[in-house]
Amino acid sequence: MIKIALAQRNYHIGNFESNTNKIIQTIKEAQSHGADLVVFAELCVCGYPARDFFEFKEFIDLCAQSAQKIAAVCTDIACIIGLPTYNLKDEGKDLFNSAYFIEGGKVKAIVNKALLPNYDVFDEYRYFEPETEFNCIDFKGYRIALTICEDLWNTIENPLYITRPMDKLITQQPDVMINIAASPFAYNHDEERIDILGNNAKQYQLPLFYVNQVGAQTELIFDGGSLVFDAEGKLIDELPYFKEHVAYYEFEKQAGVPKVSFKHQHTIKSEYTSNIEQIHQGLLLGIRDYFYKSGFSKAILGLSGGIDSAVVCALAAEALGPQNVMAVLLPSRFSSDHSITDAEDLVKNLGCLSETIYIKDITEAFEGALHPQFDNLPFNIAEENIQSRSRAVLLMAMCNKFGYILLNTSNKSEAAVGYGTLYGDMCGGISVLGDVYKTQVYELANYINREQEIIPQNSIVKPPSAELRPGQKDSDSLPEYDILDTILMEYIENRKSSSEIIALGYDEQVVRRVIKLVNGAEHKRYQTPPILRVSPKAFGMGRRMPIVGKYLS
Amino acid sequence: MIKIALAQRNYHIGNFESNTNKIIQTIKEAQSHGADLVVFAELCVCGYPARDFFEFKEFIDLCAQSAQKIAAVCTDIACIIGLPTYNLKDEGKDLFNSAYFIEGGKVKAIVNKALLPNYDVFDEYRYFEPETEFNCIDFKGYRIALTICEDLWNTIENPLYITRPMDKLITQQPDVMINIAASPFAYNHDEERIDILGNNAKQYQLPLFYVNQVGAQTELIFDGGSLVFDAEGKLIDELPYFKEHVAYYEFEKQAGVPKVSFKHQHTIKSEYTSNIEQIHQGLLLGIRDYFYKSGFSKAILGLSGGIDSAVVCALAAEALGPQNVMAVLLPSRFSSDHSITDAEDLVKNLGCLSETIYIKDITEAFEGALHPQFDNLPFNIAEENIQSRSRAVLLMAMCNKFGYILLNTSNKSEAAVGYGTLYGDMCGGISVLGDVYKTQVYELANYINREQEIIPQNSIVKPPSAELRPGQKDSDSLPEYDILDTILMEYIENRKSSSEIIALGYDEQVVRRVIKLVNGAEHKRYQTPPILRVSPKAFGMGRRMPIVGKYLS
Repeated sequence: MIKIALAQRNYHIGNFESNTNKIIQTIKEAQSHGADLVVFAELCVCGYPARDFFEFKEFIDLCAQSAQKIAAVCTDIACIIGLPTYNLKDEGKDLFNSAYFIEGGKVKAIVNKALLPNYDVFDEYRYFEPETEFNCIDFKGYRIALTICEDLWNTIENPLYITRPMDKLITQQPDVMINIAASPFAYNHDEERIDILGNNAKQYQLPLFYVNQVGAQTELIFDGGSLVFDAEGKLIDELPYFKEHVAYYEFEKQAGVPKVSFKHQHTIKSEYTSNIEQIHQGLLLGIRDYFYKSGFSKAILGLSGGIDSAVVCALAAEALGPQNVMAVLLPSRFSSDHSITDAEDLVKNLGCLSETIYIKDITEAFEGALHPQFDNLPFNIAEENIQSRSRAVLLMAMCNKFGYILLNTSNKSEAAVGYGTLYGDMCGGISVLGDVYKTQVYELANYINREQEIIPQNSIVKPPSAELRPGQKDSDSLPEYDILDTILMEYIENRKSSSEIIALGYDEQVVRRVIKLVNGAEHKRYQTPPILRVSPKAFGMGRRMPIVGKYLS
Repeated sequence: MIKIALAQRNYHIGNFESNTNKIIQTIKEAQSHGADLVVFAELCVCGYPARDFFEFKEFIDLCAQSAQKIAAVCTDIACIIGLPTYNLKDEGKDLFNSAYFIEGGKVKAIVNKALLPNYDVFDEYRYFEPETEFNCIDFKGYRIALTICEDLWNTIENPLYITRPMDKLITQQPDVMINIAASPFAYNHDEERIDILGNNAKQYQLPLFYVNQVGAQTELIFDGGSLVFDAEGKLIDELPYFKEHVAYYEFEKQAGVPKVSFKHQHTIKSEYTSNIEQIHQGLLLGIRDYFYKSGFSKAILGLSGGIDSAVVCALAAEALGPQNVMAVLLPSRFSSDHSITDAEDLVKNLGCLSETIYIKDITEAFEGALHPQFDNLPFNIAEENIQSRSRAVLLMAMCNKFGYILLNTSNKSEAAVGYGTLYGDMCGGISVLGDVYKTQVYELANYINREQEIIPQNSIVKPPSAELRPGQKDSDSLPEYDILDTILMEYIENRKSSSEIIALGYDEQVVRRVIKLVNGAEHKRYQTPPILRVSPKAFGMGRRMPIVGKYLS
C-alpha cells in the first residue's frame, strides 16, 4: 500500500520563491500525514501559462534551481512536480514540458509531455518539443504510468494527434495512472474533463489520479477540481473547485486488482450545480487573484445604474471586500434619474465607497474646443463617444492619483458587436464580464440576489441603455439580447457560417448584420483589457482574428 | 526547356474575389509571355496570416472554390498556388497548409507543408497537421521538388525540427527546387533568407526558385524579394522589395546539368543598402496597405513638435498623400513655443492639412470636476495623464466625426519602458513606430531629410520631452536613448538576462531599472494598437508575455 497526496495549489507565474515555498510546505504537511508520494500539477514550479518567459534561459535555470530545492526536502517522501526542462538533443525545440519524479532527494525519472495543445488559449508547441519515448516509473513495488494533461486528451473522435502515449505505456503493465494538468476553467469544461479522464481509466482498466492547478493567471482561471477514478472508470473523488486543497488516498493491489481508498468525506458534484454558479465562483477567483498577484488591493469602476456595472461592482465587493471598491457615478445630461438612484441603492446595499463626478462641464469644454472643426455638424457618435471617453479619463485619473485598478464592465455581447467606446467604457485593467453574454449577466444578477436584493431590481428589469443621447435604448441598434446572444454563440463558440445560422431559423438580415458587426469590431477588441475567461471561446488569446481581413461569413 | 514565371503579388486576407482575380490575371499575363508554369506564394488564395478564419469551414470551402476558378483558366499553362486543404485522415489536425500544382485545368498534385513555424509571430501548428510523406512532381520532362516556406528553413545549427523534407525529396532525383513562401519582413531578414536558401541550393546541388508574398496585413509586412539560385547556391536573381512583380526564367538541363537563364535586367541588392532604407520602405507599405485594405484613406495624428510625431507625419504624407493627412497641434500650458513652430514648419514642408486645438479649458474642466476628490493633492502623473488623454479624446472625436484613422506615434523605446499614457498617446488604429527604437527614429528622420529638410532640424536636435510638466525631459526619468536602446535590444531581441547585460558593461542599477520598467508595462502594451513589425522581435503577436507575472530578470 502507498499513500498518495494530491496537492491542488494556486501558483503565481514566475514567482519562484512563493511557488517553491508553497510546494515545500505542502510536502512537509503531506509527510506529517504519512504520505509516500505528493503529486503537484503541471508546470507548478513556474506557474501556467508562463508564455514567452520560456524564451529566457534564466527563467529555465530558475525552474531547475527551484526543483533542486524541492528535491532536497524529499529525502523520506517522493513527489511529482511539473517544470520546463532542456531537450538535450540537437534537433527539435530546446525545451520539454516535463514532470520530475523525485525520490530519495533526487530526480529519479523525467517524463516529458507528448501531446502539446496549440489551439484556443494554448501555445505549447511554441516552446516545447513533443516526446516520442514512453516509460513507466517503479515506486515501492508499484508501476506508475505518469502523463501530462493533454497526453490523456486524445481519445475523442477525430483526434488532434496521431499518437496516444497511454497506448505505449500500457504495454509496460502499469498499476496506476497519474496525470498532472493545468486545465483552465470554462463553464462546460468540468463535465468534459470527467468524461475524457473516466474513459481513459475505463479503457486502460487502471485507477487514475488527476491533479489540476487552481487560481487565476490574468485571464485564465484554473478551477482545480482534481479527480480520482477507479479502474472501472468510475469517478470516486473530486477535489473542491476554485480553492486550494490537499487530499490523501491509499492505493494498493488486492489479489492483483488495483484499488484506491480514502477516508475523508468526498464532494462529488455537490458544490456547483449550474453554469452560473460556476461562472460566479470563477469570476470571484479571477478578480481576487488579478489584484493579489499584481500587488494591488483597490478597485474602481464607473457605476451607471445599468446591470453590467452593478454586477461587476457586486462581484468586486465580494472578491475584494466592499471597503476596497470605489464606485464612481458619472452622470451626464442624458442620464436618467433612475440611473442615479439605482446606482446609489447598489452602493448602499454593498457598503462600498462611492463618489459622484458630473461630466457636463468637461463634455462642454470638449465640444467648445472642437467647435471650429465641427462647425455645427449634427450631434452624432463623435459627441456620444466624448461622454464615454470623458468618464474614462476621470476614472483613470482616480487610478493614477490613488492607486486603484479600473474594472472594465463591458459584457461579451457588447464586446462582440463593438457596442462600446474604445478608450471610453472599453477601458480597464481587467474585463470582468467580457466573456459573459448579456443574457448570462441577467442570470448572474439574479444569482447574486438569490438570498436578498443586492442589485436593485430596477437595474435588472429596465431596458438596457448606454444613455449617450436622449431616450437611447440598446434595442434601437441591436436585436433583442436573447436573439443576439444565440446568434453570437453560434458564430463565436460554434464557428458556424451565416448561412448555417440562417438555416437554424434566424432572420437573414439580422444574422448578416450581427456577423458584420462582430468582424468589424476586431480592431476594438484588439485594444481592450484581458478578459476573465469562463467560456470555451473567449475573446483575447483564445480567439485570434485578422484585423485587416475581408472575409465576412 | 520550360519557362517559369515567378509571381510576387500583394494579397488581402479573406478577400477571395480580389485574390482570385489577381491570380487569374497574372496567369493570363504569364500565358501571353509564353510561360509554362506560374508560381504564386504560400497561402496566396486566402492571404497570410488568416489566423482563426481557418477555424471556419466556410472559409476553407471558399479557398477550395477559388482554387477551382483558378484551375479553370489553366488549360494551357500550369500554376502553383497555396491554400489550406482538408486532412482526410481521422487522426491529426483537420487541415494542411498546401500547394496545388494545377495543370490541364485540374489539380495534378498536392504538396503539404511539413515544418510548421510556431514561434514569434507564427502559429501554424494551431491550424495545420505536419506532412510526413514527400513526393516530387513531374512536369514536361522535369522533376520538381516543391516545398513550402519553412520546409527549407531547417538547415541551421540546432534545428527546430527533427525532419528535413528535402532530404526525402532528393532521393527521388529532382531537377529543380521550388519553394513558395509567406515570409514577413524584418530589417535583417533578407540576408538570412538568402543565406539559408542559398545553402539549400548548394547542399542539394539544384537550382531554386523562391516566391514570397508582398504587401502588409495589419502588423505584418511582406517584403517580396523573391529569389532565384543556381545549382551552386549562387544568387542569380532577386525580385524587387516592397512591390509587386512578375519575372520570367527559362529552365533546362544541358548535358544533364540544370541551368536557369533569363533576359531581364536583374537587380541583386541594388535597391536597399541600409536597414533604415528598408525600414522606411516597409513602413510606407505598412501604412498604405493598412488604409487601403481597411477601406480608409485619411489619417490623423497629434503633432507635438517632437521627432516621433514628425516622422510619422512625414511617412503618412508619403504613403497616403499629404492631402490625406490631418496633423493636429494640441498645445497645453506646458508646450514650449518651439514645439508649435516646429510642428507648423513640418506641416508647411509636407503640405498636409492641419488644425490647432487648445486643451487648456479641457484639462481645467477635468481638474475642476476632480477637485473634491483630489483636494489639493500635489500635481503628479494623474494631471500629466489628463493632458495626454484629453488630446486622445479630441483626436478620436475628429476620427468619429470625419472618418480618419488615428496614427499612433509611440516609438519602441517608449513602448518598451511604458513611457506613454494608456488611452492617451498610446491610442491609435495602427502604431507606425512601435517597432522602431528612438535611436532608429533619429536615423529615419535624417533619412527622410536626405535630399532636403522636411523634418525641421530643431525637432531632430532638441532634447526629447513629453512636455507634460514644466521643463520635463525624457532624460529626467530614462537613461540616454543610446544606452537605453542597447539595453532594450539585449533584453527584447536577444532575450538576455539582466546579469548577462550587466556583464556586457552596463551599469547594474540602470539595467535593473530598465528591465523592471519593461516587465511592468506589459499591461499597457496589451492594450496598444497593432504595431508595424520591422524587427525580428516586435511587441504584439510576436512577443507574448504574462501580464500578472512575477519573473523579473
